[in-house]
Amino acid sequence: MVVMSGGFVAIDWGSSNFRAYRVGASGELLDRLATAEGVANLDRDGMARAVDEVVSRWPTEANALFCCGMIGSTVGWAEVPYLTCPIHPDEIARQMTSMTIAGNVVQVSPGLTCRSTNGFPDVIRGEEVLCLGVVRRTERLQSGLGLLCMPGTHTKWIAIRNGVVGSFSTSLVGELYEALSASSLLKNHLKGVARDEEEFRLGVNSGHSGGGLMRTLFGVRSRSVVKELADDAAASFASGILIGNDIRDAMNVYSELIDAGPVVLIGETNLCALYRAALQHLGHDAVVTPSEDVCVEGFRFIHDMIGRR
Amino acid sequence: MVVMSGGFVAIDWGSSNFRAYRVGASGELLDRLATAEGVANLDRDGMARAVDEVVSRWPTEANALFCCGMIGSTVGWAEVPYLTCPIHPDEIARQMTSMTIAGNVVQVSPGLTCRSTNGFPDVIRGEEVLCLGVVRRTERLQSGLGLLCMPGTHTKWIAIRNGVVGSFSTSLVGELYEALSASSLLKNHLKGVARDEEEFRLGVNSGHSGGGLMRTLFGVRSRSVVKELADDAAASFASGILIGNDIRDAMNVYSELIDAGPVVLIGETNLCALYRAALQHLGHDAVVTPSEDVCVEGFRFIHDMIGRR
Repeated sequence: MVVMSGGFVAIDWGSSNFRAYRVGASGELLDRLATAEGVANLDRDGMARAVDEVVSRWPTEANALFCCGMIGSTVGWAEVPYLTCPIHPDEIARQMTSMTIAGNVVQVSPGLTCRSTNGFPDVIRGEEVLCLGVVRRTERLQSGLGLLCMPGTHTKWIAIRNGVVGSFSTSLVGELYEALSASSLLKNHLKGVARDEEEFRLGVNSGHSGGGLMRTLFGVRSRSVVKELADDAAASFASGILIGNDIRDAMNVYSELIDAGPVVLIGETNLCALYRAALQHLGHDAVVTPSEDVCVEGFRFIHDMIGRR
Repeated sequence: MVVMSGGFVAIDWGSSNFRAYRVGASGELLDRLATAEGVANLDRDGMARAVDEVVSRWPTEANALFCCGMIGSTVGWAEVPYLTCPIHPDEIARQMTSMTIAGNVVQVSPGLTCRSTNGFPDVIRGEEVLCLGVVRRTERLQSGLGLLCMPGTHTKWIAIRNGVVGSFSTSLVGELYEALSASSLLKNHLKGVARDEEEFRLGVNSGHSGGGLMRTLFGVRSRSVVKELADDAAASFASGILIGNDIRDAMNVYSELIDAGPVVLIGETNLCALYRAALQHLGHDAVVTPSEDVCVEGFRFIHDMIGRR
């Protein structure tokens, strides 16, 4: 049985990161813990140990323990089935799955699935709680149209229509950048840090222009070879190409949403700042919201809903 | 002084491969040698040794020694400046640069450069001799329009107009596939060999349809996760996406050329077969020409031109 009095602990447990939040009885964020103990780096004993550590650290709040993310996948502790879009995010609170990890009862959120415009299935796992959080705190999204963007290894674009998650679309932006940096002829050009500078904006224009991603990316090499691109700006240029291209594709899929209000960016600070700069450069409005805030907000809502049952 | 009587030796010396051809006095291919001694794997002593070995192996023909490829780049023996497109490929024969490698006189071909439609410089080095060879042997290309495609790490699409190399465009197809196979969440899905099968053609359609490359590639993962894509067909599906996307981009740039006659595919046999299958699936005609044939043909023409001077 989950004890609903007092505070709670919320864990955003992805493939490569473990982020836990201690939330007090009034909903206030009291403490946080971030480690690299993502489920991809742990066996079952490791997952059990990670939960035990949180429970020992925050015993009172850990009476109510919530998780989202890859812990509910086939490579996590146990699989929680996906819910199908369109779906009202409140439904997530009603579909939490209880599992026992090392003697601790944990409520794990379901992922979401939808069909992309290309006909293929798409999936998110973890971001659904962020959706819930951002919809709950944004009146516009409860009654109108909006577009969320969660930049990262797999950037997620999520369409909100009158408080409902209509559909979403995943783009391999971060993964492609990392793969090219790790093992390609571009790797020597991609050693720097991407910044919002002139070469970044040139990359945004190019990636957005429709010349083809694989052709445009070759420009990183060819411009470097002929000395048109300084080595310390190549990362900015390449990053701009990928982000500009991602925004182009998102605009194709969600043309009616991209200017329905500011695009809500949720994720890692530097990457969100680059996406915001790119969106603004292309004439769109964007706001950055820390993922910590919306994650806690989402779990607060889930905690309250389950408490009211 | 280059001795022009008798046969010659032609070397296609790229970043990762060394391919040498012994050509007799009547232009017949007598022997070939292929090693992994690309310039990226060699220091200057290694390059000198590789040339010495060819000279020792084929002493008579090596009196006339021709090279193309990265040996003429900043990471090769010495840089040969690029020629600017549009250019008649015969001009390559007039612009060969003589250098002495370990006491052996070698004629090295220039690369070509042009401005892509995206405004960035593009470069080829080595493929210009293949262009020359294929134009010399194809009457249609000497008088009309045509499109060459050289699939590989960097796929080159080359526009031929009345015998002139009008422009070209490079696409990171092979590099992207390799990078994703080596270091990404897709790597476990990309262990197989790509084949012209149903999943390949589905990938071609998807990559060609304009849904966005980074989104479509995520389908490899999402379809695998929900068991819509068998593990042994994922390589075919992913390869189809990249090739279909590359053809889409080429059609955008060279719309007036793609059906001017069969696209001439030059390169590695299996990859050319996949490109041909994809082009045919999309309603275009294509023929495969072994790169060995057109390389020897190109150098035969260069040898004759220089001999007539």
